[in-house]
Formats: sequence, C-alpha cells, structure tokens
Amino acid sequence: MRIGDVGEFSLIDRLAGIVARGRADVAVGIGDDAAALDLGGGDLVLLTVDSQVEGAHFLRDRIPPRLLGRRLLAVNLSDIAAMGGTPTHAVVSLVLPADLELRWIEEVYAGLGEEAGRFGVAVVGGNVARSPGPIVLDLALVGTVRRERVLTRAGARPGDAILVTGSLGAAAAGLHLSAHPELEFRERDQLLARHLVPTPRLREGGLVAASGLATAMIDVSDGLAGDLGHVCDRSGVGARVYAERLPVAPGVERVAELSGSSVLDLALSGGEDFELLVTCPPGSAEELAALVSAGTGTPVTVVGELLPASAGRWLVLPKGREVPLGGHGFTHF
Amino acid sequence: MRIGDVGEFSLIDRLAGIVARGRADVAVGIGDDAAALDLGGGDLVLLTVDSQVEGAHFLRDRIPPRLLGRRLLAVNLSDIAAMGGTPTHAVVSLVLPADLELRWIEEVYAGLGEEAGRFGVAVVGGNVARSPGPIVLDLALVGTVRRERVLTRAGARPGDAILVTGSLGAAAAGLHLSAHPELEFRERDQLLARHLVPTPRLREGGLVAASGLATAMIDVSDGLAGDLGHVCDRSGVGARVYAERLPVAPGVERVAELSGSSVLDLALSGGEDFELLVTCPPGSAEELAALVSAGTGTPVTVVGELLPASAGRWLVLPKGREVPLGGHGFTHF
Repeated sequence: MRIGDVGEFSLIDRLAGIVARGRADVAVGIGDDAAALDLGGGDLVLLTVDSQVEGAHFLRDRIPPRLLGRRLLAVNLSDIAAMGGTPTHAVVSLVLPADLELRWIEEVYAGLGEEAGRFGVAVVGGNVARSPGPIVLDLALVGTVRRERVLTRAGARPGDAILVTGSLGAAAAGLHLSAHPELEFRERDQLLARHLVPTPRLREGGLVAASGLATAMIDVSDGLAGDLGHVCDRSGVGARVYAERLPVAPGVERVAELSGSSVLDLALSGGEDFELLVTCPPGSAEELAALVSAGTGTPVTVVGELLPASAGRWLVLPKGREVPLGGHGFTHF
Repeated sequence: MRIGDVGEFSLIDRLAGIVARGRADVAVGIGDDAAALDLGGGDLVLLTVDSQVEGAHFLRDRIPPRLLGRRLLAVNLSDIAAMGGTPTHAVVSLVLPADLELRWIEEVYAGLGEEAGRFGVAVVGGNVARSPGPIVLDLALVGTVRRERVLTRAGARPGDAILVTGSLGAAAAGLHLSAHPELEFRERDQLLARHLVPTPRLREGGLVAASGLATAMIDVSDGLAGDLGHVCDRSGVGARVYAERLPVAPGVERVAELSGSSVLDLALSGGEDFELLVTCPPGSAEELAALVSAGTGTPVTVVGELLPASAGRWLVLPKGREVPLGGHGFTHF
C-alpha cells in the first residue's frame, strides 16, 4: 500500500500509534495543534512544527521570498494561538538546492525576522542541508501557556456553540487569484494577501483562553469542515453548521463565480484561512464573542452547535435542508 | 551569487545575522549544538533540529528504514549530549512522495520509537506534507540541562587540553563500505553500524557536564578538524592536535588502504562519528577522562591542546612536522 492510498490523517494516526509512549510530563501529545509539556516551570511549554514545501505549499515564481519567510513562521504561530499560548522561540531547518540564489534565502530570512519581531519570537538556531530536490523549509516553534488556560481539541461537549474568528474562504480565493493575474477586481489584493501571509490569531486565542469560557479550540488550516471534524473526532461529538451564518470574506463570492467553484466549498473546505474555531457552552457564546471582538477588533461569529456524536455532522443549507458536512478540507495525501 | 558558492557555515552566519534579535530568556542562541532557553523552570530548556534528506544523508536502497528512524533521532540526541543535557520530547516533520510504500515510513517510525524508548524520549507531534521530490525527515528535539552545567562551544581557553570520546573515522569508513559490499573483512559490520546509526554520547556528555571540569563541548558531526574549528572560532583560540594520539577506530586503516584515502582524512574530516570533543584545563584532563571512562566504559583520549588564536591551528604529524589543521570537515555547500 502507498501512503497516497491511506489519507493524511489516517497516516498520522498509524504513525502516532507506532511511537505511542508516555512521559508523565506530556500534558498534550500527538493529535493537537501543538504539544504541551510540563518542564517544571509555572507555565506549560508548547511545541509545534510545520513546513513549507516547494511545489506543495508554494511556487517560487508566485510568492516573494520575503512573504514566504513570514508565512513559514505565521502558520506555526497559528498553532500556538490555537492552544491559547504565547510564542517564544523558533529553530529552522533548511533543505536547499546548491544552485539557489543566496539573495532568495536571505529574503526569506528577512521576512522571517520581520514576522518574528512582530510577535516577539527569537530565532535561536537551525540547520542547513543540501538537496537535489524542491526547497523544504521547516520551522519548529516553542511557546508557553498558563497551565490552567491550555485549550485542546478534546474538551468540546454536545450543545456547545461553535464560534469562528474573522472570515472564511479568503485564502482559497487568494490561491485561485494567484494563478490568475488577469482577474482584476476590488478585493483582489486583500484576498491574495490572506493567501500569501495568514494573520495568526494570537491575541484572539489568548483572550479566548484567558476567558475560561471555551471548551475547545483549533486553528482553521484544513478548512472549517475538516478542522471541525478534528474537534468532533477528538471530543466525541457531532455538529450542525448553518451555511447562512458563515462569515464569508468579501470578494469570495465573486471568485467563486469566476472560478466555477461554490462559495460554500471555498469557505468550508478551502483551507489555510488560519482563523480560530472555538467551542463554548451556548450560554457563554455571546459573552465570549463580544469579549474577543472588543479586545481585538476581530469579529467572532457563532456558526452552529455541537450535537451528540450519534447525531452526525451536518450542514444546514440556506433553505433549511440538511446535508452531510462532507467537505473534508485539504489533506496532503 | 549561489548558496553553493558561499559555504555552509558562511551561509549560516549570514542568515543568523539577518534574524539576530534577542530575548532575555535565550541563554544560548544560534551557533551552538542546541539553543538553551530559560522558560522559568529550574532547568534550562534545550532545543535543536536536524534533518535526514534522501540523496544527501541517505539512499533508500542503502539503509533499512528502521535504522534510518533510529538515525533521525540519534543525530539530534548527539546535539543534546554536546550541551550536557537530557533529551525529553521530539516532534517530527515528514515530507514524502505520495507513491511511497506505507510500510517504509512505518518502519522508520518503528526505529524512531525504539531509539526514543531507549533514551526516554516522547514523540509528541509532527507534520506530514507531500512532495514530488526526495524524502525529507526533520526532527526537532527538546531536552533539559541544569543551568550551571550547560556547556557551549565558547568557553575554551588557550592551554586547555582537547579530549575526544570513543574512536574516530568509523562512520566515514562505514559510509565507504556501504557503497562496496564486495569488501569483506573483520570489522566490516561494526564500521557499517557506526555509519548507519551513531551512538549518541548522552551519558558521557552528562558526566562531563556534571564534573564541572570542562570548558567547552561539541559533538563531532563534521569531522574532528571541522568541529574543533567551530570551538576555535567561538572561543577565540588556536589548537594543536597530535596525529599519533587520535583514537582511530579498528578497521579504519584497512578501509583507507582499500579506498585509497588516508587514515588521517577519515579520522579528522570524515564526519558523522558523533563522538564528543571536550576541552578542559590541562591539569584536569586526566581526571575528567578517567571519570567518564569509569562511568560509561567509553575511552576518552587527550588528542591535543588549545593555543592562543594568533598561534593558529596545527596538526602534528607522526614524525613531528606540523601542518595546518586544514581538513574542514563535511559541509553541505
């Protein structure tokens, strides 16, 4: 069997099973946005890793290297945000062809340094290796979180409200626009920017965690349908999402028309929006949304509610018909 | 200019300069075997990353995947050993072609799990991405070290003795043997094993650090000449190494004969022996060597002494002639 036949998340589950071995100091292990470790300090230590692979995550002629450097850190920052944490230190592993222009990788580092400065992260080490193949940039990020505040994918309960920060579909729309420079319209630059460099929702995640109101949190990197699916899997719940309530980003509808895809596909399965999906008891949803919006200026929208696992996972279409929440989000295999 | 033209360590220095930005909690930053961070616990937190790239570090038909999994962790364990630390947690980033046999990566994980179990490390997360190109396995490793024990490359002083654990040249000889299955002789399997899966010198590094006698430590991953060069660079010292004192591994001389290379090249520039190079005041060298040998069974040899930087870096040949310690070790560019 080839790994392309088993699917990304099934592959991860299989591999996780092989190395499953506990240490008493692992508060959160494989299967969340980041691991949380008890290394003896007052706070838990968060650890996550993510890569940017040429040909899979980026094309050299479509993203300026400075933005790629920012993106490399930003996607990891989003994982720390989803745990309610604060990022602190990063190490980078570069796999590069020998004929790469020095200027290109220096620009990547300039962007990485910019983004690190913006979020108070220190780049403290790394590794360089040569490869005949595509460029691979890997970044491992450390952060901290107060131990009583850490939020995982596993704490959600039936009846909880489902909230999402910001807006959806922008990154997928931007990806489409990056391949179609001829498509000119008002929101083009904004959507393209959302695709090129996501904005990690660190302040939003911090406020959610500090509120004590939330039961689970995850970042929306695979598409809302896929990431809500991860919460359902880990928490043992079902879900109902209302299409009409989805905060679709401005311009996404136009891109859907121009590209022949559907707005719902872009918003639910597009992936890489790097918003936060949060669950909380229904009675606290309004308070939590207001608190985060007031503190950050980022809108927070209630898009549905959790159900018992046996009730399944559903999308309520605008006219009231329920269809399976089948968009599985972007997967690598 | 291409990165192939600037050299690996010059590239690292350039990139480090671009992201140079302090945080007060960075005890040891870019340029050592691992970073050391003060995250509020009693111990410092160590962080390092290293990769195994198909075509650069391994060939799929030359290393069983289970051994590759062990190797992926072992090379990182060596970095933690060189700081005097104890490894604790790892995250892994996999970049894989979709047509890869599932069995192959499961075997890699089986080996990773074995090695992790042997050294008490928990694998707590990871990431999977697809690539059309060569396999890239990246591992970021966390460890801890008592803050008064941490050893860097920067503390060595002129006059200090240079010590090395174990034996040299074995990995380079093993690499040669892996390409020449027709070469049969007594030490073949042993040398091959040293190439395939290095033995991280964690107990040795721990004893060195606990002794309080050492001034600097580094692992021998680029070849003794190259890694001693890193200590000289960071500590601002020169060095004199005696060829006759080098603990050349059994069988290396035979491989040198068979391959037309020199024993000194294999021992000084071969790289990947993953021994520890330690410096300490000359009066403590014997005590330190005895202490580590007694505690671990690993021989420790005094191979030379440090000089003022202005005196340069020299290799004393068996007949007494001094030549520049010119082997620069393996570099990636």
